[in-house]
Amino acid sequence: MRKDLDSMMSEQGLEALLIFGDAQHNPAMYYFTGGGHVSHALLVKPRHRPAVLFHNDMEREEAARSGLECVSFSRYPLSKFFERSQTPSEASARQLQSILLDMGIARGRVAIYGREEIGNLWAILSHLSRWMPDLEIAGDSPALPLAMETKEASEIARIRRMGEITTRVVARVAEWLSEQAVAADETVLQEDGSPLRVGDVKRKIALWLAEEGVENPRDTIFAPGREAGIPHSSGSPELPLRLGQTIVFDIFPCEAGGGYFYDFTRTWSLGYATEEAQALYEQVKAAYDLALQAIRPGLPFREVQRVVCEFFESHGHPTPLHTPPPLLEGYVHSVGHGVGLNIHERPFSGLQGEEMALKTGCVITIEPGLYYPQRGLGVRIEDTFWLREDGQVERLADYPYELVIPMKRWRK
Amino acid sequence: MRKDLDSMMSEQGLEALLIFGDAQHNPAMYYFTGGGHVSHALLVKPRHRPAVLFHNDMEREEAARSGLECVSFSRYPLSKFFERSQTPSEASARQLQSILLDMGIARGRVAIYGREEIGNLWAILSHLSRWMPDLEIAGDSPALPLAMETKEASEIARIRRMGEITTRVVARVAEWLSEQAVAADETVLQEDGSPLRVGDVKRKIALWLAEEGVENPRDTIFAPGREAGIPHSSGSPELPLRLGQTIVFDIFPCEAGGGYFYDFTRTWSLGYATEEAQALYEQVKAAYDLALQAIRPGLPFREVQRVVCEFFESHGHPTPLHTPPPLLEGYVHSVGHGVGLNIHERPFSGLQGEEMALKTGCVITIEPGLYYPQRGLGVRIEDTFWLREDGQVERLADYPYELVIPMKRWRK
Repeated sequence: MRKDLDSMMSEQGLEALLIFGDAQHNPAMYYFTGGGHVSHALLVKPRHRPAVLFHNDMEREEAARSGLECVSFSRYPLSKFFERSQTPSEASARQLQSILLDMGIARGRVAIYGREEIGNLWAILSHLSRWMPDLEIAGDSPALPLAMETKEASEIARIRRMGEITTRVVARVAEWLSEQAVAADETVLQEDGSPLRVGDVKRKIALWLAEEGVENPRDTIFAPGREAGIPHSSGSPELPLRLGQTIVFDIFPCEAGGGYFYDFTRTWSLGYATEEAQALYEQVKAAYDLALQAIRPGLPFREVQRVVCEFFESHGHPTPLHTPPPLLEGYVHSVGHGVGLNIHERPFSGLQGEEMALKTGCVITIEPGLYYPQRGLGVRIEDTFWLREDGQVERLADYPYELVIPMKRWRK
Repeated sequence: MRKDLDSMMSEQGLEALLIFGDAQHNPAMYYFTGGGHVSHALLVKPRHRPAVLFHNDMEREEAARSGLECVSFSRYPLSKFFERSQTPSEASARQLQSILLDMGIARGRVAIYGREEIGNLWAILSHLSRWMPDLEIAGDSPALPLAMETKEASEIARIRRMGEITTRVVARVAEWLSEQAVAADETVLQEDGSPLRVGDVKRKIALWLAEEGVENPRDTIFAPGREAGIPHSSGSPELPLRLGQTIVFDIFPCEAGGGYFYDFTRTWSLGYATEEAQALYEQVKAAYDLALQAIRPGLPFREVQRVVCEFFESHGHPTPLHTPPPLLEGYVHSVGHGVGLNIHERPFSGLQGEEMALKTGCVITIEPGLYYPQRGLGVRIEDTFWLREDGQVERLADYPYELVIPMKRWRK
């Protein structure tokens, strides 16, 4: 949590955090500023001292709204640094050096964060690390991601509100789909008699999210049939919708201005489901229930992945537990991930890399799935959960688990 | 232009370009892939050879839609590299090294691009540059930005379409505002009799942009009165609209999925304009016309800035030409910038740094403004232009230049 940041910095031996980039759609910067029209900014957070936000004059009021101490870059005019520099990145590096020295940061370990154009920053930081050899620039320190991993009450409220909006839009999509006409060949039709296509559905989703005042910066997955069998196929816009095909509908909007995300998936089959789809769906739901039972604070997240892999393997599906890559069918991904200002953040549940324990206060998805693209189907079920102080695992938005969307205007 | 990329790479002495990150909202990657749900990808473009896109298995169909040669990261399984690594960034660096060696890139100069989390990439590239000392990683090579600076016909068509959408939404906002009721104290009212606030207008703008199927990832500036006097104040949502105040309305949406932007500003005054606002407006419009007359291929963009500064100074306004920072009133920014997959890109018109000539094929804004926050007003006029092969400067979307929006339901 935010209040743990200084102790995380101590544990990681960090003198300061340097955060680069815009305040919007930039999780690390947003975490401190709360968004706003502040671009190409720099935030310096020394250990045990408050953060300072460096910004352009034109954005002084937007910066001030963050409530942070704000300093204009014009106190460090680039024109002055250009005189002694060969390239723009050298001038920017001199400006950064001057700011750091004024803040008393001349040596020790500093961690860098922010989503920004990497080229220019690589050039600037390369100059800086040559000129300030006593400064160690750490790229992969988890101090800030560790603080962001566990959420305080105000963050939970915002994620929960995004869950309410997300499920409201999902319900609207289900209701609207169920009211469409169906042709004799089981194609779903628009009012004008032409086929209803994935692109038409996605436009409705985008519009209804906008009506709710949220953003959808990473599109929506609405993938029928064979494309449902490839977890991150987002759905080709020209594909017509047909009855009896699984549709993976994975939706992950964020607050306007680049704030908190919600992550949610249902798998639907319009009109009816094939026996094969129904059987897969029930296995995925059983895996989802198993995963939920397994979750408890302190458990390594990858143990939940292992439980789900073992269950799926007992039903004959390949999984990452015993099948080496490439793994193109069966259960092909991990069971979940943290959600916050990033759609994917700590904790991760992969079998490789750092083992991450489930902590009280974290917000995670549980999202098992089964994928058989060559058989033309895929299934995933996903909700977002909060590990509460009292040990309960709370689903942050409820939504039914029906595979079949009844088509009101269809007579078999 | 795209076709010039290999020659730009030769001029810059580059063996390859390495582009990191998602395909959406990541201009360098989008330039090659055309978007798509491809996350944490790597694109390698060797000089005089086609680009190769490295992606996750789950996103293989989204990657394939780019039309590029695609290779799954599972050919370079991280599990293998984890065995020899202390940290995740070390494993990722070994994976990257292995890919580069397989592509025959072992020495020489490579340029890096992409909007991505900088920390992790700094760690990965720091390892790489230690292990591959013959490889020079250039952060600030302009090869790709130079290619992207001049647009081919298909790009112009997309920016022009964004201009049509943008001005259609602006016209809808003007029409809607003109129909609102006005209280005796000149406050603009909603249907329910409560004041119409900036936040209400911004919600309409976001909704109407979504109806047009485009995104608005960087919000909209709709800033009345004193906030109009600070160029990048985006407008406080709680501010009520009143007659006779200048409102700077700067709107810059992009194609869905992170494609081409358009950039457009008008300044409005509802019902009537004060004499002071009218006078400033006429000066800004005169500066805009002067700038347009000055534009020609080959001219350094900063010469246009100089012309505008001199004009404004002749009318007694401070400008960056002779006033050192901080410059908080008068003409406080530069006259324009390139527009494309970035809202701000080459060419830039600032008086400092690299001198950038206006080239045939570039798309630029012209956007002079005058700002007096302490007098409670600001004015900016902005359109987006294309420097055509035939030497003409074409405005990519037309819209009238009226300061006053008549209020149909207001009787003085």
